[in-house]
Amino acid sequence: MKPKGIAILGSTGSIGCNTLRVVESLGAERFHVVALGAGRNISLLTEQVARHRPELVSVESEECAEELRAGLNHLGQQAPRIAIGEAGLVEVATHREADCVVSATVGAVGFVPTLRALETGKRVALANKETLVMAGELMTRAAQKSGAELLPVDSEHNALHQCLHGVNREEVRRLVLTASGGPFRTKQKDEMMAASVSDAMRHPTWSMGAKITIDCATLMNKGLEVIEARWLFGFEADRIGILVHPESVVHSMIELVDGSVLAQMGVTDMRYAIQYALTYPDRYPTDLPPLDLARLSALHFEAPDMERFPCIQLAYRALREGGTLAAAMNAANEEAVSAFLDERIRLTDIPRVIGTVMDGHETKTISELDDVLAADRDARVAAAAVIAGLAQDSTVNVEALRN
Amino acid sequence: MKPKGIAILGSTGSIGCNTLRVVESLGAERFHVVALGAGRNISLLTEQVARHRPELVSVESEECAEELRAGLNHLGQQAPRIAIGEAGLVEVATHREADCVVSATVGAVGFVPTLRALETGKRVALANKETLVMAGELMTRAAQKSGAELLPVDSEHNALHQCLHGVNREEVRRLVLTASGGPFRTKQKDEMMAASVSDAMRHPTWSMGAKITIDCATLMNKGLEVIEARWLFGFEADRIGILVHPESVVHSMIELVDGSVLAQMGVTDMRYAIQYALTYPDRYPTDLPPLDLARLSALHFEAPDMERFPCIQLAYRALREGGTLAAAMNAANEEAVSAFLDERIRLTDIPRVIGTVMDGHETKTISELDDVLAADRDARVAAAAVIAGLAQDSTVNVEALRN
Repeated sequence: MKPKGIAILGSTGSIGCNTLRVVESLGAERFHVVALGAGRNISLLTEQVARHRPELVSVESEECAEELRAGLNHLGQQAPRIAIGEAGLVEVATHREADCVVSATVGAVGFVPTLRALETGKRVALANKETLVMAGELMTRAAQKSGAELLPVDSEHNALHQCLHGVNREEVRRLVLTASGGPFRTKQKDEMMAASVSDAMRHPTWSMGAKITIDCATLMNKGLEVIEARWLFGFEADRIGILVHPESVVHSMIELVDGSVLAQMGVTDMRYAIQYALTYPDRYPTDLPPLDLARLSALHFEAPDMERFPCIQLAYRALREGGTLAAAMNAANEEAVSAFLDERIRLTDIPRVIGTVMDGHETKTISELDDVLAADRDARVAAAAVIAGLAQDSTVNVEALRN
Repeated sequence: MKPKGIAILGSTGSIGCNTLRVVESLGAERFHVVALGAGRNISLLTEQVARHRPELVSVESEECAEELRAGLNHLGQQAPRIAIGEAGLVEVATHREADCVVSATVGAVGFVPTLRALETGKRVALANKETLVMAGELMTRAAQKSGAELLPVDSEHNALHQCLHGVNREEVRRLVLTASGGPFRTKQKDEMMAASVSDAMRHPTWSMGAKITIDCATLMNKGLEVIEARWLFGFEADRIGILVHPESVVHSMIELVDGSVLAQMGVTDMRYAIQYALTYPDRYPTDLPPLDLARLSALHFEAPDMERFPCIQLAYRALREGGTLAAAMNAANEEAVSAFLDERIRLTDIPRVIGTVMDGHETKTISELDDVLAADRDARVAAAAVIAGLAQDSTVNVEALRN
């Protein structure tokens, strides 16, 4: 059998690097890298190219391309073709020899390339959850039309995909996403108001980027995942539940109509989910450490506190209202998280910013990409205004709390 | 679609009664009872017949048949045909209109009828684990030959069946049976030596008969289940593990070659597993209480202590050696448990009796039913001798411990 071609959008990020490790461990007879898309981390990208020898590489700018060319001089004729910007990422995502596209860029930059990959009928292993939150309808419509497969790399959705395999959808009562609960799970509301950036960055179980770690602290991450699950699996909002599980060992579960529950568990290493998305429906051995429940000793579960974590309710609201509201919510959240990381607002201001932006958003149905992008743009402008208003109050309040 | 016919061996026992409740809740358009086999509980059987109107009923003796006939006088022409003894149970198990036979008798009495059901190509929902422990090879051979399905009702094996559905067997690394750990999980060896019958009968999570409850206290139950799993699923001994899980919420799990773990969970109510075995591969809604992990709050796991619970090692040894040894082990265990319940030996004597009988057993390959029955007979004689020897010592020791 011919080895499958892999293209990676965001190869120098955490998921991108782990994907390359998985591809390498699976062996050249099963998978080979055909195209890599990255941004500005040219030194890492140079190493990746030298090791995996893709045919095509895309970088952010002509400057980055120059730097990469210089670093790959020693490859001579075997140096890859280099493309640039969004058009370059689209080339990576639709590469003729790519059977599977791993979509792992952060934020909206992977949006168009991922849509093109789905339109071209590629299997897309999706790690960028904003794509489905903003435009789940467009993405799933494109996949259905071309017959493309959309497989989640997020550990929770990957778990749901594993649980749902071979199960008749009509026999599923509901999906249950587990949530670590973040660093403020056991904290009071006033402690959350006074939380510093470093307090919020202390994720109990996963090591990830700043944006997603803050989303975990507000539980907005789980709200985004509820929306993601809706588009991946076609379940309505009231059939997707959230259960706080601090150890993050049960990655998620499904409850069947007869009351039986199927759960997927594993150690917290993204390579499991990445490999599953690449090799599905097959499974190949890994040398990753197996789950040792006896050593873990106890797993805990509790209902999420909707009062202390209003972001969850905002996400359910966006999902129920539909159209562009989720894109607006997502944009407002990105702006609010960024403002918190810059210490311009408090952690508890994040849901306030999002809620205010959502209240003012005029929800439209999504017919094309531009509807989503317009909602995103407008929400960012609206969020900036709300943040500016809060920023001054916050500074005063945070100072007051410190004294 | 024609409703499926159900025959029950052991209708007045706990599994039998629960099966009737499940059949009733599923509705007459899906299932109807065609034959019931029971022993001596004629008052309950009379009620069951009046309610479910089977075509055939089997009881232990002519005396029981008389009593049943009297109780069903009011049914007149609609009274069922009544059969007697093992031959009667075989008639129940092979009833022309039975699509599924629930094998739920206690001990060896269901042995021949279950084999006949499998030979006739019936789906057998098996709750009697001794059947597979004693003669797994014969039973599975018969099922393969006729194309009969063998589905487990034991909650652990039912869980494994659920997890394995749709999974390629070559992609399974191992099966993991969970065990409550029984009432002596946290006790020291000397406390176990002094344990009374009522101490041993305190099962933490399931309410069951005396024999199986004692098997749970010695963990022999889990040993028997390892053997059962081997025959149901075709995995060798070293690919079947045991994990102690006091809450009995995770009913069992499978570990896949890529390190992912799939688990089945549920509340501890046998009706889930019974219904699954009846309706597989379909699932129908139940009004049983759903699993509430948030309310349970914590699930615990630990490795089993092979030193304090030597019965587990005995079972693995029987499985590895094969042939008639498991039948001998099972018979010795039944005799030893019975002696403990009669207060003739101590709890910790049970594995000593079994081990001694196994040491003296001359293992033979199983070609036919008689090989199994002979091993069973011989082991009971041998066990009786060992028990007689221990009984006197024990009385003295238990007295000593009490003073």
